[in-house]
Formats: sequence, C-alpha cells, structure tokens
Amino acid sequence: MTHLPVCQTLLLELHNGVLHVTLNRPESRNAMSLQMVAELRALLASVREDQAIRAMVIGGAGGHFCAGGDIKDMANARAQGPDGFRELNRAFGALLQEVQHAPQVVITVLQGAVLGGGLGLACVSDVALADHQAQFGLPETSLGVLPAQIAPFVVQRIGLTQARRLALTAARFDGTQARRIGLVHFVEHDAQALAERLDEVLAHVLCCAPGANATTKKLLLASAGQPTDALLDEAAQWFSDAVSGSEGVEGTMAFVQKRKPGWAP
Amino acid sequence: MTHLPVCQTLLLELHNGVLHVTLNRPESRNAMSLQMVAELRALLASVREDQAIRAMVIGGAGGHFCAGGDIKDMANARAQGPDGFRELNRAFGALLQEVQHAPQVVITVLQGAVLGGGLGLACVSDVALADHQAQFGLPETSLGVLPAQIAPFVVQRIGLTQARRLALTAARFDGTQARRIGLVHFVEHDAQALAERLDEVLAHVLCCAPGANATTKKLLLASAGQPTDALLDEAAQWFSDAVSGSEGVEGTMAFVQKRKPGWAP
Amino acid sequence: MTHLPVCQTLLLELHNGVLHVTLNRPESRNAMSLQMVAELRALLASVREDQAIRAMVIGGAGGHFCAGGDIKDMANARAQGPDGFRELNRAFGALLQEVQHAPQVVITVLQGAVLGGGLGLACVSDVALADHQAQFGLPETSLGVLPAQIAPFVVQRIGLTQARRLALTAARFDGTQARRIGLVHFVEHDAQALAERLDEVLAHVLCCAPGANATTKKLLLASAGQPTDALLDEAAQWFSDAVSGSEGVEGTMAFVQKRKPGWAP
Repeated sequence: MTHLPVCQTLLLELHNGVLHVTLNRPESRNAMSLQMVAELRALLASVREDQAIRAMVIGGAGGHFCAGGDIKDMANARAQGPDGFRELNRAFGALLQEVQHAPQVVITVLQGAVLGGGLGLACVSDVALADHQAQFGLPETSLGVLPAQIAPFVVQRIGLTQARRLALTAARFDGTQARRIGLVHFVEHDAQALAERLDEVLAHVLCCAPGANATTKKLLLASAGQPTDALLDEAAQWFSDAVSGSEGVEGTMAFVQKRKPGWAP
Repeated sequence: MTHLPVCQTLLLELHNGVLHVTLNRPESRNAMSLQMVAELRALLASVREDQAIRAMVIGGAGGHFCAGGDIKDMANARAQGPDGFRELNRAFGALLQEVQHAPQVVITVLQGAVLGGGLGLACVSDVALADHQAQFGLPETSLGVLPAQIAPFVVQRIGLTQARRLALTAARFDGTQARRIGLVHFVEHDAQALAERLDEVLAHVLCCAPGANATTKKLLLASAGQPTDALLDEAAQWFSDAVSGSEGVEGTMAFVQKRKPGWAP
Repeated sequence: MTHLPVCQTLLLELHNGVLHVTLNRPESRNAMSLQMVAELRALLASVREDQAIRAMVIGGAGGHFCAGGDIKDMANARAQGPDGFRELNRAFGALLQEVQHAPQVVITVLQGAVLGGGLGLACVSDVALADHQAQFGLPETSLGVLPAQIAPFVVQRIGLTQARRLALTAARFDGTQARRIGLVHFVEHDAQALAERLDEVLAHVLCCAPGANATTKKLLLASAGQPTDALLDEAAQWFSDAVSGSEGVEGTMAFVQKRKPGWAP
C-alpha cells in the first residue's frame, strides 16, 4: 500500500481503489501555484506503481476547478530572470505529461473556473465531467502571454480547428459548448447529477481489469500524435520570451491594475 | 472480370459495380473467426486490381454486424502458446489495414452488435451507416484483454478524447451516440431507411470516377496520422501478454462461466 | 505602414488593424484563377511583417465565396503539357500553406458556393463563419480529377472520417452541416447576423496581443500533424496524372458539354 505524500495544496482521499484529489486553494480559485504543481507531481510519482489505485478523480474546492497559473509565482519568477519563467512554465508542461501518462484512469470534475492551466489539466483526463455553467477559456494572449505548455494538449484534445479559434480569440465558453467541441464527455446541470455521473463512470472503470486498462491507455496514447518533449521545451522558451517582453509586461500590469492593456480597442 | 473466391463465412453478391459482402455466421452474431479473417483477406486481395468493382458494402446476417473475436479461436490459440495469440491478433490488424487501404469505396451497414473487432471494422470504412439501436462497444478490458489491433484505428476514427473514454470504461453506446462522436456518418431508424440511405450513398459514389476516387483515398490516408506496422506489431505482443496473463485467463474464464471477474466490484 | 499591392481580382480595405479581402470575380463565382492565386500570395507576402495588420477577413463578391478552380486556366495548362498542370496545382497548395501560416488571425466569411479550392481556403482560416445556405462540396472526383492540394487540409480541418466520405462521394452540404462536422465555427441565418458575428469575433481578436497571438498560432500549427511540402509535391504529380489521363479528359469535357461523364450511372 502506497504511503500518500503530505500535501498543503491538495486534499486526498483514497476510497475503494479510487484516489480523490481536490485542488485546495479556494481563496484563489485553486490557481495552480508552483507548490501545487510540485505536490501533484510528487503524488503522481508516489502512486504510479500502485496497482491498487485504479482511478484518480481530480476536482476543485469551493466551486471552482482551477483558474490557471498563480500570478504571485509569476512575480517571483520575474525576479529570477528569463530562466525563472522558462522553468516555471516547463514544470507545468511536465505535470500535464505525467497526468496524461498516468497508468490510472484519470477523471476530472469541472465546475466554475476552468481557465488556462486548468483547461490544460482537463485536456489530459480520460473522462471529463462538466457542470453546464462551468467557465472555460484560454485567456493567455489577452494578457500578452502564451498558452505555451497548454496549447499542444488542447490541439490533441479538440483538434486544431477548434483550438485555433479559442486560443486566438480568448473566448469564454460554458460546459455545454465544451461538450459540443469534444473537450468534455458529459455535461450535467447540478452537483447531484455530477455526483451520480461520476459514480456511474467509476462503476464502469472498476469493471475493467486494471492492468489491461493501463496497457490500453499506453496504446491509445502511442496511437495519437502527441505533444513531444522537444515541442514543449521550445514552447517554454517562447513563453519566457513572451512574458518578459513588452506585451507580457503590459498585459500582467494591466491585469493587476484592473485596466485594459494597450492593444485592446 | 475477377473470379470471386469461394467463401464459407461470407455471402457475396456483385451487382452493378458494387460488391455486397455479408458476414455470415449468424449463430455467433458473426463473430470474427480466423476463417472469416482469412476469407475477407483473400477476397480483398482478389478484387484489389479489379477496377470494375467500385464499391464494397459490408453488412452482417441475422440482424447483427459483428460481435467481435471468436472465443473458440482464442481457446485454440491458447493451446499453441503465446505465439498463437500474437499471430491471431496480428492477422486481424492486417485485415483492418487491408480494408482501410482498399482502392474501392468501402461502406459498412451497422445493425445489432458492433463490438470489439466489429467496431474496428466499422472504423476503417469510408462511409458508415448505423441503425439507431445498434450496440457499439469495446468490451476488451472488462474481459482482462486488450483492443490491441483495434485501438489505433479507433483513435484515428474518433480521436483520442473519445477513444480513451470508450476503451477505458468498456461503455456501450447506440447508433445515435456513434454519429455524435463521429464514428458513423448516418443513423437511421429502420431497415427501410437504412436501405434507402445506402442507395443514395452508392448513387453518389458511382458518379465519381473510380480511378480518381482510388487516388484521392490514397491521398487522404497519407494525410492522416495512421496506424503503422510497427505500432500494430507491438500491440500484438501486448495482446499476447495480456491474454495469457492472469487478467486474461480470469476474464475469459469468467466470461465463459457467466460470472463477474475478480476485479469487478 | 505596408503599401498594399495593386490587385485586379481582389478588393482590399484596411480598417482599424483589419485587412478586408474580397475575392472579386463575381462573373465566375470568384473561381480561383491563376491571377487570383498570384495576387493573394503577393498580398500575404507584403503584409507578413506588418504587425499593424492584426487580422485578415476573406470573403467573396456577389453572394459567393469561391466556386473552385478556374476552368479557363485548366485549358491553358493543358496546352503546356503535364508540367503545366502540376505547377498550376502546386501553386494553389502553396497559397493554402501561406494562408495557414499567416501571422495574422485569418477569418473567412462563407456564402453561396464554397467548392473545391474555395473549401480548401476555408479550411486554413482561424475562424470560419458561414451562411446557413452556403453550398460546400468537393466535386473533384465527379469530374475525374483530384482534390490534390486540398485534401490534406480537409483532413487536418475535419479529420479523416468526415473527409473520406465527402471526397469519395462528392456530396454537397450546407452551412449547418459544415458546422456539425467542424469545418466552420459559426453558422448564421442572414447577412446581418453574419456581419454582427464578424464584429464580435474581431472585437475578441483585437483584445489579444498581436505578437502573442502570432506565436501561439505558430505553436498550434506545430502541434498538429500538418500537410508537408513532400506530401503536397506528390499530390501535385497525382493531380497532373489524373487531369491529363482519360478520366480527367472525359470529366472536364462532360462538364463543359453539360452532360454526364461516362462513368456515371
């Protein structure tokens, strides 16, 4: 039996072969801090070989899934210069790769804000359930920065055609639209219906042999054109350039100052 | 004019440039036996260069399309050891590749059971028509084995996002859902409507020049990321490992004994 | 400030950072002549480095988007022998690659005929808006020729599953169906609604930082399996073979003579 790591940003509950993970920074809509990234990666590593854990359910505390990156970490990374940004960014991409390739079946339960990195996390789940009022979006370029580690997984999830519109217009969309474009599998109208759908999906998962499921997942991922290390490395450099360039500085400053950035009409 | 091979598991009818192929083992819901695989492959090879055959329509006898692999062949393969499983599995993948690359336009008419290998066969057709009550599904991992040769074609057909849910939950779905996720092109509500739709599609196909269609099909397949020989070879080995491993033994035994396997709750 | 080239087949209007391009050969439903291809390519090259142009909107004059290739150019190319066809064909593929990789956000507004090369052009736009009555289709193989430079972009746009049915049946479909299969993002019921939707999309685009959008677009395209130079070169040769072969000769002659070709029932 795996000893689960102690986490400050995550609530963990293991029940009946299913590990329930709750992103738990409700005061910032569960924004993905560096610490949260590190704790999630440590958690995945610790359960990777544990065949008694057959599924992982990821949700968020306080009515939101995840509002994206944490603005405070950005400020700290800025203090470390361009390398800081690149490493911050690449670590998140590594987390997405590790969730994508987890041998367990990964299920996300999406409510409230599912933005930026939160949307990226949804894109690497095997089954995604959304509340119809959840708010999805890729706001990065409206802030002068890039969805650098996220975009490759969005393309893989919903295809280039939908990804290019969403990323280049920073449009918001709800759970119903998320299902229509194929980002999520189920959309429900309240918390009760979401919980029942989750139970149904878990019952199906637990009817499947765990080793066969893990090998099949590996085969499915090998069959798909998938984000490569090389592409994500390059994307981290582009992110670093963008965030420390004039658009990135202006965008984050405008965001903090609650004003429109210079390029907006 | 091609001389069609004599087949025991298939009914063949050539009419007006269209070869109608009926999978004909209704006593086992047209389960894909080794003999059926061999006969289909011989048929495809015999018509490959025959430009007078412009389309191929594949359906099933007795109200079902195809319920998957044949359990009796599995038992025989087990007697031959791991190599037996690998070769059995890989031969089916070779059939799927050959249907995929047939120069003719391939149309599947899907009723009743469209499971496992039957679903794989649907995934390599150019146009797929389904009855709204057809039952689709990938039950493999719920039996402790893998959709090894099938999964790559499912990913290519409907994308990774839908494929991972279906393969990792062994969920059943009907013709209407099959159209919604893009597995089939048309869903109809009775046999009469299916027959009319087939006539309409064939009329369109016959308005297209056969050589131009064959070259265009080659171009379309070359444009898509496609299952490679290397991937399918590896998948056959994984299948062999799974089916002769403890999960595969337990799963097939539970299936035959009409009981739940050990891993199911 | 870029000096826009003088064009005979295009109307250009630059307004508020948005370049409006109107295909302007209404007498032939804006068929894509060699001159139009050359003028579009010169236009794209001239604005490529101009960061003040943040979006490009492409529509057609006279109620149609683009009815495909120009039959007169085909006659001229025939006079030059097989090389003529290959070069004519490959130049159009190069245009599609250049639109696809334009750093600006490219929006197409699709009304009336969106056929063959017109459909190809729609497939490389970042956001596509369609009138519900627009007529889409790939008629090539019904004329004995190939959608040679177009097919790879159609596969990338809507996936292999939908592309194979459309290309191998030459089926026509309207704006509503185009949205359902993911070719366009929005479908509207009249010109007024189309104009309002365009305003909304442009407002979103202009809220995004231009440099960040250009880099994100590059990243999205790099993440997708994309049509390669080698594939498009080969496709141009296949096109040339088809158009100068017996099917191509018969198909174009039947089209001009307003009769059915020999292969049609």
